Amino acid sequence: MAKQNIFDNEVFFDGYKKLREREVNANNLFELPTLHALLPDLKGKKILDLGCGFGEHCIEYINAGAESVVGVDISEKMLDIARKENSDPKITYLHMPMEDIGQIEGKFDLVISSLAFHYVEDFAGVVGNVYRLMNDDGIFLFSQEHPFSTCHSGGDRWTRDENGRKIHLNLMYYGREVETDNTWFVDNVKRYHRMFSTIVNTLADTGFVIEKMVEPLPDDELLAKYPEYYDLFFKPDFLFVRSRKK
Amino acid sequence: MAKQNIFDNEVFFDGYKKLREREVNANNLFELPTLHALLPDLKGKKILDLGCGFGEHCIEYINAGAESVVGVDISEKMLDIARKENSDPKITYLHMPMEDIGQIEGKFDLVISSLAFHYVEDFAGVVGNVYRLMNDDGIFLFSQEHPFSTCHSGGDRWTRDENGRKIHLNLMYYGREVETDNTWFVDNVKRYHRMFSTIVNTLADTGFVIEKMVEPLPDDELLAKYPEYYDLFFKPDFLFVRSRKK
Repeated sequence: MAKQNIFDNEVFFDGYKKLREREVNANNLFELPTLHALLPDLKGKKILDLGCGFGEHCIEYINAGAESVVGVDISEKMLDIARKENSDPKITYLHMPMEDIGQIEGKFDLVISSLAFHYVEDFAGVVGNVYRLMNDDGIFLFSQEHPFSTCHSGGDRWTRDENGRKIHLNLMYYGREVETDNTWFVDNVKRYHRMFSTIVNTLADTGFVIEKMVEPLPDDELLAKYPEYYDLFFKPDFLFVRSRKK
Repeated sequence: MAKQNIFDNEVFFDGYKKLREREVNANNLFELPTLHALLPDLKGKKILDLGCGFGEHCIEYINAGAESVVGVDISEKMLDIARKENSDPKITYLHMPMEDIGQIEGKFDLVISSLAFHYVEDFAGVVGNVYRLMNDDGIFLFSQEHPFSTCHSGGDRWTRDENGRKIHLNLMYYGREVETDNTWFVDNVKRYHRMFSTIVNTLADTGFVIEKMVEPLPDDELLAKYPEYYDLFFKPDFLFVRSRKK
């Protein structure tokens, strides 16, 4: 199956880096706080971070007391920055597609992946390797783009009124688990759609016990400050699943 | 919390009964086959059927070798027919809202509910009682209307072309877990929307291990015969979850 390395495309990389540097964005307002809320105590833990990118999470886990972190990313450009900006003797950065993690030696207490799996075609293969790489009672926590975002829209994703305000999400093809070509800074960013049931069954069939699923939504305080995020009630941006190897 | 008994409304009841008697409908083409595929071996099992309606499932479970079945329904009109048409010494029909099943004595190996939970406000309460009524390693299997159906549409659920053909689902308010008033034979049929994450977390928090989630879709053979069910790729009608008490 294809292993996509869109992050080494220069235009994509520059656009993505600027987006992540903005203070107010969906990642900082919703993805990061939800990830933090779902993390267990990291003290003494051996952690594997799949799609570690710039390594900001890796260094954060070490600062929170993790024993060691292995960060895996397919993009050499991302890892260059990770090694420069987020280096630590307890962190090992590995340049490999996450489809190849079966090659990694050792076992982990915690496997985390933030917003990477929707770029991966062979989700079941990755989940199977994660399971084999984990210690018993280990936790597997990941976020991905929400299935309402990954599914093929067939055209405009939103219906808007004459003022450009979103009226409703135009949902099509949720039940078609196809690869979509998206334009995000550059053309042909491939995303892989999976229904909720496919995600749940892949974890359950592999042997994981699902502990928590989160589709982050704004609370009243956040809405008062950023009313544009009311859209999330129509289409959450992210999906989190935390499961455990029993 | 409210306990809804819409099935004792005569207009609703007659309309619903006629719908269920039609040979070709979504229940017979998708809901029933999926339910059957997810059922474990019933031989010798003690079964509780929540929202048993006319009792067709109860008698079927006995015919498949179940030791006993308790069928619960809030509608006396439904149970009248169940007792007339689907009676058996091994079946006990109980007239009660499923919110009250905590009163039932005994333990069950299998708790099944077909297309009833979306009428129930206190889902967590019912799931908690189901857990307490189950033997260890027992299976809890239910279907409900799909969350894309239960969520408030804010108006027309579909955008159609000039020939009336569905173009896309108008999805709104998926993230708002509100009661909706629907017109289905009669006005004010109340349905309770829950996000995927709420359903998963209610089961996980109660102690159930999720084994399988199914959003039934048509295969090519069925589509060739009934092309109108292509719509299900945009909005599956049903959601099934099978979980186990560990």
